[in-house]
Amino acid sequence: MKRLLSVGSLPTGPYNDITDVPGVLVGHSTLIHDDIRTGVSAILPHSGNLFTHKVVASSYVANGFGKSIGLMQINECSTIETPILLTNTLSVGLVADGLVRTMVEANPGIGRTQATVNPIVCECNDGRLNDIQRMVCGEKEVREAILSATSPALQGSVGAGAGMICHGLKGGIGSSSREFLMDGKTYTLGVLVNSNFGHSKGKDLIIKGKTMESFISPIMSKGEEDKGSIIVVVATNVGLDAKSIERILKRVPIGIGRTGSYMGHGSGDVFLGFSTANIVTEDTPFRTITILNENYMNILFQSVVEAVEEAIYQSMIHSPAVKGYRTSVHSLTEWMNDLS
Amino acid sequence: MKRLLSVGSLPTGPYNDITDVPGVLVGHSTLIHDDIRTGVSAILPHSGNLFTHKVVASSYVANGFGKSIGLMQINECSTIETPILLTNTLSVGLVADGLVRTMVEANPGIGRTQATVNPIVCECNDGRLNDIQRMVCGEKEVREAILSATSPALQGSVGAGAGMICHGLKGGIGSSSREFLMDGKTYTLGVLVNSNFGHSKGKDLIIKGKTMESFISPIMSKGEEDKGSIIVVVATNVGLDAKSIERILKRVPIGIGRTGSYMGHGSGDVFLGFSTANIVTEDTPFRTITILNENYMNILFQSVVEAVEEAIYQSMIHSPAVKGYRTSVHSLTEWMNDLS
Amino acid sequence: MKRLLSVGSLPTGPYNDITDVPGVLVGHSTLIHDDIRTGVSAILPHSGNLFTHKVVASSYVANGFGKSIGLMQINECSTIETPILLTNTLSVGLVADGLVRTMVEANPGIGRTQATVNPIVCECNDGRLNDIQRMVCGEKEVREAILSATSPALQGSVGAGAGMICHGLKGGIGSSSREFLMDGKTYTLGVLVNSNFGHSKGKDLIIKGKTMESFISPIMSKGEEDKGSIIVVVATNVGLDAKSIERILKRVPIGIGRTGSYMGHGSGDVFLGFSTANIVTEDTPFRTITILNENYMNILFQSVVEAVEEAIYQSMIHSPAVKGYRTSVHSLTEWMNDLS
Amino acid sequence: MKRLLSVGSLPTGPYNDITDVPGVLVGHSTLIHDDIRTGVSAILPHSGNLFTHKVVASSYVANGFGKSIGLMQINECSTIETPILLTNTLSVGLVADGLVRTMVEANPGIGRTQATVNPIVCECNDGRLNDIQRMVCGEKEVREAILSATSPALQGSVGAGAGMICHGLKGGIGSSSREFLMDGKTYTLGVLVNSNFGHSKGKDLIIKGKTMESFISPIMSKGEEDKGSIIVVVATNVGLDAKSIERILKRVPIGIGRTGSYMGHGSGDVFLGFSTANIVTEDTPFRTITILNENYMNILFQSVVEAVEEAIYQSMIHSPAVKGYRTSVHSLTEWMNDLS
Repeated sequence: MKRLLSVGSLPTGPYNDITDVPGVLVGHSTLIHDDIRTGVSAILPHSGNLFTHKVVASSYVANGFGKSIGLMQINECSTIETPILLTNTLSVGLVADGLVRTMVEANPGIGRTQATVNPIVCECNDGRLNDIQRMVCGEKEVREAILSATSPALQGSVGAGAGMICHGLKGGIGSSSREFLMDGKTYTLGVLVNSNFGHSKGKDLIIKGKTMESFISPIMSKGEEDKGSIIVVVATNVGLDAKSIERILKRVPIGIGRTGSYMGHGSGDVFLGFSTANIVTEDTPFRTITILNENYMNILFQSVVEAVEEAIYQSMIHSPAVKGYRTSVHSLTEWMNDLS
Repeated sequence: MKRLLSVGSLPTGPYNDITDVPGVLVGHSTLIHDDIRTGVSAILPHSGNLFTHKVVASSYVANGFGKSIGLMQINECSTIETPILLTNTLSVGLVADGLVRTMVEANPGIGRTQATVNPIVCECNDGRLNDIQRMVCGEKEVREAILSATSPALQGSVGAGAGMICHGLKGGIGSSSREFLMDGKTYTLGVLVNSNFGHSKGKDLIIKGKTMESFISPIMSKGEEDKGSIIVVVATNVGLDAKSIERILKRVPIGIGRTGSYMGHGSGDVFLGFSTANIVTEDTPFRTITILNENYMNILFQSVVEAVEEAIYQSMIHSPAVKGYRTSVHSLTEWMNDLS
Repeated sequence: MKRLLSVGSLPTGPYNDITDVPGVLVGHSTLIHDDIRTGVSAILPHSGNLFTHKVVASSYVANGFGKSIGLMQINECSTIETPILLTNTLSVGLVADGLVRTMVEANPGIGRTQATVNPIVCECNDGRLNDIQRMVCGEKEVREAILSATSPALQGSVGAGAGMICHGLKGGIGSSSREFLMDGKTYTLGVLVNSNFGHSKGKDLIIKGKTMESFISPIMSKGEEDKGSIIVVVATNVGLDAKSIERILKRVPIGIGRTGSYMGHGSGDVFLGFSTANIVTEDTPFRTITILNENYMNILFQSVVEAVEEAIYQSMIHSPAVKGYRTSVHSLTEWMNDLS
Repeated sequence: MKRLLSVGSLPTGPYNDITDVPGVLVGHSTLIHDDIRTGVSAILPHSGNLFTHKVVASSYVANGFGKSIGLMQINECSTIETPILLTNTLSVGLVADGLVRTMVEANPGIGRTQATVNPIVCECNDGRLNDIQRMVCGEKEVREAILSATSPALQGSVGAGAGMICHGLKGGIGSSSREFLMDGKTYTLGVLVNSNFGHSKGKDLIIKGKTMESFISPIMSKGEEDKGSIIVVVATNVGLDAKSIERILKRVPIGIGRTGSYMGHGSGDVFLGFSTANIVTEDTPFRTITILNENYMNILFQSVVEAVEEAIYQSMIHSPAVKGYRTSVHSLTEWMNDLS
């Protein structure tokens, strides 16, 4: 696979996306018409019943100016039990409602003979390219995103990425992965981002260490400060406990920062991570698991920093210029010649 | 006002409820029919426009096995900008959606010329007395709860309290307040709980230091462990920053524990607090505020511990026995003679 | 063993102290002369080399007005690698220095061929009974406390407990344990406290639900608010990850609160927990461990709440009245007739 | 002042160091002889009595594999009441002891008529250039560091910086500042680092976006992973509450990450921040303060990211090559021609 903007020294998985982690799938429901440019994206940690076969997980909030839901229970119970959905800020309620309904359909005991379910919905504000007040995402789009989940992942202006703006250019869904050897076996860490952050004149954008302001700013119409949001989902098949996953997530800001952000006040910078090893069923009092020793974490830290930076570039490279609800945005692809 | 089960040494406000804090109002929308016994409750920090005139706030999660939303932004921005809504677990999505719609109606710039809005919805699982899968709460009930807000607060099996079970007995909305002098002026701290926790045979219930097991257990049909949830909202008119509010919230488990709970695994124990002093408008770079010095916090700590314990008793005293969806529950009032 | 003030429904281990957890030992070095009434206590998670064979651990700070050290690394690495030492507030530096020296002696590679070591020293302010400015605890007392470690644990006015005041009465070292069956095997949870908290007139003291003010206050000379500190160490042989241990520690305030405290501003309420299962050596990339499922945590929550309350009573029952540096304190044993 | 490696777009203060924040002073005690290459550095938030005139503060731990002390109370009470000392890992105990003694000397009521004192000592492991087991820093060095405090700050291999290695090259004390206008007045944010992190072959070093591996690695003798530590102290004269300071500190990893680090497992990445506005005396129940609105935080976020990156470069530029206890290290200055 050709990498247009490769980052770091570690090799990628076959698709250079989060679905290189075995079992992980990504799907989208995209709505683009009239003043609408939004959608729902779904990351499935595995294709089985997540409610009965949970994955070990953690979250980390670098900047909490956002409305994502479901994080509290992740951090208490150290598990994820639904697909992770992404959508726009004001649609979180209806999308959560839709997700609960799909989970109840698959697990009719929820809230009756079984516990209730913890829907996970993360959001970015697409109000510049989408009339967000119309709150058009709901149960239908949830089902579509989940049912369409595939490997490799579609990237760019799809699903929740449809209306994203990143560093003043078109952002959206981006993904990248890294492979590494541990104890003689190859493991994978994958990252998916929905990129909607950075100065709206591109003033702060850095691509692989190179400041882009002189290229981008001249053609941008007006400036705003660093605002928006970025959701980052990290997956791996290395066996980890929740605490180790959180440590990985705390390195995500470095990857974001290398693209020029300083995580502005108005940005919800919210990160989720999960391990597909050691599925949690809780049928028995004890379970025996295999986890990584902390002394061996560095390769995961390096992987996540590299993959986050590259996933952000991917989100921009896969997103053509668009005209939306209140503004038009250029695409980073217009400057690809300046990047080589 | 007669106090049936008074706790501690500090005096209460006029109503012995959270609305003794000047400006605070509480409203309910109650749904009771067929297999339905649920609702929405609303706590309004003030009766003005909360989106433009935010209150300083914090949250603390003692046990995060719950689906409450809105806490992340509270903890980043230190403000609450909507009414605080309570409902059942599976209705959080539709109630959040309804709350966003009422906020947009009052502030048409939300998501267009203004920032988006952070809806706060906390929940307890009423699935034993209510067919929670039917997800009957939404925009209509949100409006009704907000519009019906009054002082004093209605307590017991109203609003989100309709389907609560506490220590195996009927629980629900309870409230209490404390008054104290500071620098020559009288201040108030008020607490509102939605009580849905404790062992289902009442095995652990303690009333004012007295173990109730021998009274209650004999007539209870079957046992379950400590599960359910409790939402606690704390209000005060003392000027505090978010950090000080969080310190107050960290004392809430003591009040809960004195009623016999050990905060079981399956319980979402989620606490929100706000100060009505120092309204936040953020029009100017700087604002001048008056806040309490930490050395003077003890009276607030004592107040919250006393008021939480008493609010839990209030929630039970105001709730008659009921027969609901999957079970019947007795009322603590049946044992009032044993408590004197 | 006779229990003078038994709490709750679960059985204790053979000694009703923290050393009922297999392998755990407790030792003390006590200094009482002239204006000095202080010391060092040591809790050993096991009697082997802790630096090379670490235990899984976590900490939780309910009120951080204290000077305990070593918690940061516990929470990052999820391990404890030294004995846990308790001493007075101003001696933390010299006691930490002494602990480092004993660790280097046993592991000459520390800081050279091996990593450095993270000393854990927790403290309470014994400045009312001890001239704390004299800072008399150091390396000698550290060695003595560690070398004298035994099972059962000595309790009362020993080691760091020598100068403690709890609810205006003599406090100090107290301990209690609980046993329970899991998956057909008996497990133990043990608690050790150093109690130095509560109102100095005993105004808030509650013993097993009974308010003691009317008994105690009349003979007390003068009043102060809730201040001081309490250090709580929790041990178990149940296999747990760090996150589950932290969940147990978050229930400790309930046990403290049942003795009458509301965790006053001036009190450092600091809790450490560890599991003796799944010793950490980190020789290999992966390790296989057996841990408890979260759904089975309730018995541990109940155990810690019961044992903390009882350990506090134990700390008072084992401590006779004393006259110290700046004040005299009565002993709870003077009221034992009122407690039956 | 000539800036050899300037970062970002904001202007610096007159000295481009942390002492550009009015009142802040920095001093050092340096020990270099035989196998010893270590010391103590002191950052004074102001030159008055810090115990009676505390500064508002917060801390943030990006990676807690370290032994720094004093953070717990900072985060509870939101204040710093001593100079901030930096030293080597194993000397924390004696340096804390020395700091307590200097504080008691200046405030004889500590632990008697006044509260005890919370010493703040942060550390990095200088065991490659210094025989750290000899634990040579103590009270004498503490006094010398505090008494020698000046503006501008001395940088490089001074004080705790004497034995630092950063990205395989000589590190140490570095500092930088930024100035900005708010409400018509000029404010300052200053940063001081003690840099001891990064891959020991310089494999990951990035200078102003440029990967240095091809320049540096060829002459380096052997490789190790990212380990070590970095302590970052942030000062400003903008009025902030503790929560806002913590938000600034959460941006520090971006500045560190831009120099090539991914915050390795073995690195203690510990950050402290304080505001010199709104001195805390707590004489009265209430105090009136002027603080920044959150909406205006971005300039502080940008400042800290720029100043951290530049302070790390400063730490390396001011540090010549040295031969120490177990190894020799080159200086970044050897490659200055490659950086233009």
